[in-house]
Amino acid sequence: MDINNRIKSLRVLMNEKNIDAYIIPSSDSHQSEYTQGHFKSREWISGFTGSAGTIVVTKERAILWTDGRYFLQAEKELESSEVELFKMGENDVPTINRYLEENLKPLQTVGFDGKLFSSREVEAMKEVFSKKDIKINIDYDLIDQIWASRPELPEGKVFIHDIKYSGISTEEKLEHIRNIMKEKNTDYYLVSSLDDIAWMFNIRGSDVNYNPVVISYALISLNGATLFIEDEKLNDEVSSYLDKNNIEVKEYFSIQEELKMLSKEKTIYFDLSKTSIWCYENIPYDMKKLNGEDIVEGLKAIKNEVEIENFKKAQVRDGIAMVKFLYWLNSNVASGNITELSASEKLEEFRSEGENYISLSFETIAGYKDHAAIVHYSADRESNYRLKAEGMLLLDSGAQYLDGTTDITRTIVLGDISNEEKREFTLVLKGHIALSSAKFLYGTTGTQLDILARTPLWKDGKDYKHGTGHGVGYLLGVHEGPQRISSVSSKIKLESGMFVTNEPGFYKKDRYGIRTENILFVREEKETEYGKFMEFETTTLCPIDLRGIDKELLDENEKKWINNYHRNVYEKLSPHLDQETNKWLKVQTRNL
Amino acid sequence: MDINNRIKSLRVLMNEKNIDAYIIPSSDSHQSEYTQGHFKSREWISGFTGSAGTIVVTKERAILWTDGRYFLQAEKELESSEVELFKMGENDVPTINRYLEENLKPLQTVGFDGKLFSSREVEAMKEVFSKKDIKINIDYDLIDQIWASRPELPEGKVFIHDIKYSGISTEEKLEHIRNIMKEKNTDYYLVSSLDDIAWMFNIRGSDVNYNPVVISYALISLNGATLFIEDEKLNDEVSSYLDKNNIEVKEYFSIQEELKMLSKEKTIYFDLSKTSIWCYENIPYDMKKLNGEDIVEGLKAIKNEVEIENFKKAQVRDGIAMVKFLYWLNSNVASGNITELSASEKLEEFRSEGENYISLSFETIAGYKDHAAIVHYSADRESNYRLKAEGMLLLDSGAQYLDGTTDITRTIVLGDISNEEKREFTLVLKGHIALSSAKFLYGTTGTQLDILARTPLWKDGKDYKHGTGHGVGYLLGVHEGPQRISSVSSKIKLESGMFVTNEPGFYKKDRYGIRTENILFVREEKETEYGKFMEFETTTLCPIDLRGIDKELLDENEKKWINNYHRNVYEKLSPHLDQETNKWLKVQTRNL
Repeated sequence: MDINNRIKSLRVLMNEKNIDAYIIPSSDSHQSEYTQGHFKSREWISGFTGSAGTIVVTKERAILWTDGRYFLQAEKELESSEVELFKMGENDVPTINRYLEENLKPLQTVGFDGKLFSSREVEAMKEVFSKKDIKINIDYDLIDQIWASRPELPEGKVFIHDIKYSGISTEEKLEHIRNIMKEKNTDYYLVSSLDDIAWMFNIRGSDVNYNPVVISYALISLNGATLFIEDEKLNDEVSSYLDKNNIEVKEYFSIQEELKMLSKEKTIYFDLSKTSIWCYENIPYDMKKLNGEDIVEGLKAIKNEVEIENFKKAQVRDGIAMVKFLYWLNSNVASGNITELSASEKLEEFRSEGENYISLSFETIAGYKDHAAIVHYSADRESNYRLKAEGMLLLDSGAQYLDGTTDITRTIVLGDISNEEKREFTLVLKGHIALSSAKFLYGTTGTQLDILARTPLWKDGKDYKHGTGHGVGYLLGVHEGPQRISSVSSKIKLESGMFVTNEPGFYKKDRYGIRTENILFVREEKETEYGKFMEFETTTLCPIDLRGIDKELLDENEKKWINNYHRNVYEKLSPHLDQETNKWLKVQTRNL
Repeated sequence: MDINNRIKSLRVLMNEKNIDAYIIPSSDSHQSEYTQGHFKSREWISGFTGSAGTIVVTKERAILWTDGRYFLQAEKELESSEVELFKMGENDVPTINRYLEENLKPLQTVGFDGKLFSSREVEAMKEVFSKKDIKINIDYDLIDQIWASRPELPEGKVFIHDIKYSGISTEEKLEHIRNIMKEKNTDYYLVSSLDDIAWMFNIRGSDVNYNPVVISYALISLNGATLFIEDEKLNDEVSSYLDKNNIEVKEYFSIQEELKMLSKEKTIYFDLSKTSIWCYENIPYDMKKLNGEDIVEGLKAIKNEVEIENFKKAQVRDGIAMVKFLYWLNSNVASGNITELSASEKLEEFRSEGENYISLSFETIAGYKDHAAIVHYSADRESNYRLKAEGMLLLDSGAQYLDGTTDITRTIVLGDISNEEKREFTLVLKGHIALSSAKFLYGTTGTQLDILARTPLWKDGKDYKHGTGHGVGYLLGVHEGPQRISSVSSKIKLESGMFVTNEPGFYKKDRYGIRTENILFVREEKETEYGKFMEFETTTLCPIDLRGIDKELLDENEKKWINNYHRNVYEKLSPHLDQETNKWLKVQTRNL
């Protein structure tokens, strides 16, 4: 069945159900960042394979909204179908809500599968649509009825994240959560986010690529806890572990009945932006609902002592893989046999040799020359460049280990580069150093710190159009909230025990891209009569390519930072490397 | 009648009106920063003369809340009465709302004069009190009934702010405002803020110390405008000017009837945080109310071409007065005859000789030695220190001119200071320079920029406990929103045409205080393919005391900044100074 026929079938169902516009987003039922086969409805109906995009089908049109990262790809993939492309962020391109408001008539109906939209998103829709008396119907997953060969829900097996890695038992975590619930005067707490559930119960799985989570819901009460999950995912060991921790197991979709049967006399707490409107609507109408920041999100962002120690060890292992790879690349690039894809595979191979390795933590970005200017580039067979001993390779990659998660970007100088490229490489590095060496009063947010990484570029009239850093999970999502370093307004303080990336960059369209990324650990520096001061510790261990640096642009403190960093890289990694690689690493980490 | 008797009389009235707790804040009916005689009810009932504080009188207790600036003063002033002091910000000191929630019983009533609280403040009260079914009564100004010799409302005369100073006619301003009203779909726009009214109608007065505003309300419709004001304030010239501009004049208090009579079919717009609950409650219950950011506040923050040019000229005039004063101070301090107060008076004398001078823009802060560590210190006859040729004098002062408003702080080194003091003086200056020389992408907020001024101190484990900068009015409040430079979260962008202060500081308790403040002008730097970049121009002209600087702590760019700044100060001011002062200024502005 080709795309146009799929859309035609959808329109037949829309007609049956009196739906005038049907929306299919790229998310799953848990508002996850990445999704798996079963949840790729938008891809199936539109033919567009990018990770972010939403299609709206009306009686006359089918329109895909996606962002700048995917314009070229979408144009190509939509070519042979009736699906039109709306380029988000371009002038005159309306938002989806605005488009629907303008194109539907009063009393017409917008439909979608309520599991795929957060309550917060639907609240925003309602605000726009109510002005024009446009109705919303959240009841139907119409794709399910026409997608004959739809994959089943992911069937990954659950495993226990041993206490030697998780650091705190699920019993203790639940006690902590229940104390917060009591403070908030709530009887129940609904958790829909997959990484929150995994953290809370110390379980992991393999239901989402790069994210070792388990498709499930959880409902916590003041004296009980229920995990809603497909039974096949659990082996005896896990079942008995859950049982011992007083976690009741119920069928995944029975969350619906469970919510419906909650007593109106009780109170339930959840985060509107992390809870689907489907869940929301299943909670009794007259039950007291408390909305607020997610409890688990706040707790899991601050890593415990065991997690912190392990996390740093995982960075060593990751650094070893990176250095082995860099040595291999440097030795072999001149052969002309290495491509963006084969380099990524080789790096994965080195990583997979490390202890506790599970998988990559996201799809590797290996962008050579102008490919690196595309911020979210991922090579495929068609685009795949062959590397030569010239220009720069931007390599952004990471892994999941039983004892931590990594995320590192290096811009590798493969041969001569221009003075302009060196200047920009160095400005990016200056920003990276300024953020790494920041000392800041407790209470400071990532919104305040962001400017430190941008100032050197801004003084040159340059900028990068992405955030400076994001929180990092622990054998969970490589992007994890609530903290981040970004110009976007946020009131989240950086707390001791958090990890956050430091990744300023610079992108010259159609020419090259530069980014230098390490993971920082947030810790207390000292307490003075003026307050408690915080600082960062850089945990990522891998040389920064000295061939990219214009020393004239660095001041003494910056040179000292680089030399100290490289000394630390050599000290921590060299005991684990062979003589040849060590010799090479010694040169790479020499004093400036 | 002593304080206790006043409170007793108040309790009699409270009893009559069934009020269990009566609140008297320090604000006036227009939520102004400074108030005048008639509005000093809180001072009259409590005996506390500080500018910020709120008293709550219950049947049993009378409690004054004030902040750290006033603890010593309040303790002294409350000594002889029953009024207790609650020190805001200290542990275990509840907020007023929390105190009332905890100490009143259900169905008891909190009362206050509704003109003195913004609708936003009362909204917050309601949220707290409703939990316990505590009632609110906003109907009575009980103080008015017992304060026999209460001053009348201020009777300052209104004058027209000539177009050669204001730059844009009131006709044009009203047209602009009405266009925004149309976009917002409102029929009326209520303006209660005194500086907004003065700006909109190009009028000024003298109703509030340091603030040349006029006690009044304004109501704008799509084809009319009404100014609610005491008739005696207007002379024929002003009356005919208002008439020519189609601004109807009505009696000040008739705003109440006017609001009551508005048609329910119409819509009214206002800013909840700038509109008293008294006004709010007078608007028909079922009239459509739109709340949002104040329209005039946003317009007047971005100065027009005429205002900008004048504003900079006023800084020259202010700089001349400052340099004359500094020369005088340096020549005479050794005599031992100068005090904090007499120095302030001398400076005022120099300022008043300047063209277009109207008044000071706030009460001068002249804090010598440990007095300077008290951030909002103002000398009185009792505290008044005699200056000697040693230590530092912190001098924060400014003036209102017909063509602008000034605000400058210099820390004057009167004799030898310690290396520690020099270090801190220099760290403050480094922060000042970093902010002044910032280049930033359009869209950047003061929340993001604040850290630039603090970083040098933070690296030393030091900080200052106030914002880094505030907007500045134009012959209006020296503190003017919405922009500011502060760690407090704000989404207000810095726009070309805004003025904002740059005033980092450092305070060593019981020892000394340091602050260096200039006014910055925000302008576009350049547009590149990465965006529009903004920069600051320093408009304040006055030497920074070189005796305070430890050169070792400055890098080349910082030295260059100081030398350039001083060259500019000398070039702009020297044509207006006598030979002797010029010779002195030349030395003060020599190259580092």
